[in-house]
Amino acid sequence: MDYFSRFANKSVLITGGLGFIGSNLAHRLVELKARVTLLDSMVPDHGGNLHNLDGIQDAVTVNFSDVRDPHALRYLIPNFDFLFNMAGQVSHRDSMEKPLIDLEINVASQLSLLESCRRLNPEIRIVFASTRQFYGRVKHLPVSEEHPISPTDVNGVNKMAAEWYHLIYHNVYGLRTTALRLSNIYGPRQLLRHSRQGFISGFIRLALQGRSIQIYGDGNQLRDLTHVDDVVDAFLRAASAGAVGKVYNVGANQAYRLSEIADTVNEVAGNKSPVEFVPFPEEYKKIDIGDFATDFSKICRELSWFPKMELRPGLGQTINFYRKNLEHYLGPEQ
Amino acid sequence: MDYFSRFANKSVLITGGLGFIGSNLAHRLVELKARVTLLDSMVPDHGGNLHNLDGIQDAVTVNFSDVRDPHALRYLIPNFDFLFNMAGQVSHRDSMEKPLIDLEINVASQLSLLESCRRLNPEIRIVFASTRQFYGRVKHLPVSEEHPISPTDVNGVNKMAAEWYHLIYHNVYGLRTTALRLSNIYGPRQLLRHSRQGFISGFIRLALQGRSIQIYGDGNQLRDLTHVDDVVDAFLRAASAGAVGKVYNVGANQAYRLSEIADTVNEVAGNKSPVEFVPFPEEYKKIDIGDFATDFSKICRELSWFPKMELRPGLGQTINFYRKNLEHYLGPEQ
Repeated sequence: MDYFSRFANKSVLITGGLGFIGSNLAHRLVELKARVTLLDSMVPDHGGNLHNLDGIQDAVTVNFSDVRDPHALRYLIPNFDFLFNMAGQVSHRDSMEKPLIDLEINVASQLSLLESCRRLNPEIRIVFASTRQFYGRVKHLPVSEEHPISPTDVNGVNKMAAEWYHLIYHNVYGLRTTALRLSNIYGPRQLLRHSRQGFISGFIRLALQGRSIQIYGDGNQLRDLTHVDDVVDAFLRAASAGAVGKVYNVGANQAYRLSEIADTVNEVAGNKSPVEFVPFPEEYKKIDIGDFATDFSKICRELSWFPKMELRPGLGQTINFYRKNLEHYLGPEQ
Repeated sequence: MDYFSRFANKSVLITGGLGFIGSNLAHRLVELKARVTLLDSMVPDHGGNLHNLDGIQDAVTVNFSDVRDPHALRYLIPNFDFLFNMAGQVSHRDSMEKPLIDLEINVASQLSLLESCRRLNPEIRIVFASTRQFYGRVKHLPVSEEHPISPTDVNGVNKMAAEWYHLIYHNVYGLRTTALRLSNIYGPRQLLRHSRQGFISGFIRLALQGRSIQIYGDGNQLRDLTHVDDVVDAFLRAASAGAVGKVYNVGANQAYRLSEIADTVNEVAGNKSPVEFVPFPEEYKKIDIGDFATDFSKICRELSWFPKMELRPGLGQTINFYRKNLEHYLGPEQ
């Protein structure tokens, strides 16, 4: 499927547009000659970063506001052909410490956004950044979309609810929504400052600092890591296809053990400090999902998507990016 | 299991305590010599009714406040041994018209309530009124707890999220929660004024008024109706058992077609007006779940619960109640 020409001169809104995936998508959409508006709340530590627009500052419009603000959204929504709905609180641990904040950002604002779309712009094409997190502790690997759902934390419940809203607004109102359940993602423009948005950013930060990567437990948990360029490709394919009212897994070809991933990060970064295995903190252990590997055959079959970037070259490209831009992604330790 | 003595002198809080199930539970708990406090917001048309306390006014404490009010809850929660968590917005149609209100009542307030419990009274025993609604359009009958979840409307998503919160607060914090997924329920003390909380109250109202019962569609949809006394029994069994962190279906022995249920209601009430079949309104059709019948073998096996009231005698008792108390349940037409 060639979607390259599909976005030229189209008006595109990206919520969470200054964040990790949103900004990478913005770079690609600028190449594809779309008219791109980025909405971001710039909540500290959530991932929004002005440096993520380096090179495209003059080609995009930035609207600083929060998805929790229904008034700004009602004003913006009528103007767009596409909505890439990336805004969210992604830390599982934070969702347990501040569950009502997670609920506001990941559920209430999503419902408000969908209400605005159905009332003010029912033709808009929406792709929602969902997560594989709410499969929970899985029964078998790899995990397809048919696997039972069993969230282990408040964030999982909330993202699941938001995904269902997208599907219900399609079923009941005909809104043209698609949800992508994303696995762990790595690549340029990710928040490195803390590890609450996923282990990989912590691994990369520590390796670049020449410090020991710490792994909770024995390091045997399986995870699949998708490069953000592949994730961007999935969003663009979903938005330009007729895949409305559908849910797709997006993940990597191969799952690796955390200890293998840490070793690879160290090798690629030239870090000589050995990996350290430390006991699982109680509050993480209770919400950990164990092993994961993605069955992405549905999106492969229906949207011809498959992950092109292998882990080692992907980590090489990623670590090169951070070496050049480290000060913008490595703020004070949390 | 004999739970009769289990509640004597125990402090019990019922949210939604002036509503249909809550007030029936209160009557039973007063018989069992519990110290009962009822929390109710008295939101118009949600089911709260002072007449529901007829006969037990002096034996219970009423606290008028809203589960959305975290301050009142924080003050109340430390005082109780048991929490029967019944408060909710139950209209599916209303959840589509005012989705953010449904979210506040059914999700945000539940999360706030659980936070209060874990912080202020971690030993409290909680039973949550969940629903079979979020099984959605089911794949096979009867439906067990293992059936995949697929909500068809915002209310279904929200109740599902609230149920998951109860389970996660058990898994992560050890809160002693149980959820009962209730099927359609009938009996004394239900709001008859409108039909948005379930078809059966509308059937009973129209039959008592000698008017035609209207059925959407061909009347062939299967539904199982559980008498509220059986539901109360399920709540008491769940609360006095060790069934923490678990979910149970609660439903009837037999499912009937809507047209059969309407005929039976008319017969029992002596209503001569014929049943009318009318086209499904578009907004109901989109969220209708089709046939349903409950597999309640899990609660039967684990808590020795089974529904004792058959439909015809149950309807007889129910209609007798409303004949005597009609003015309190039949306000202005909506």
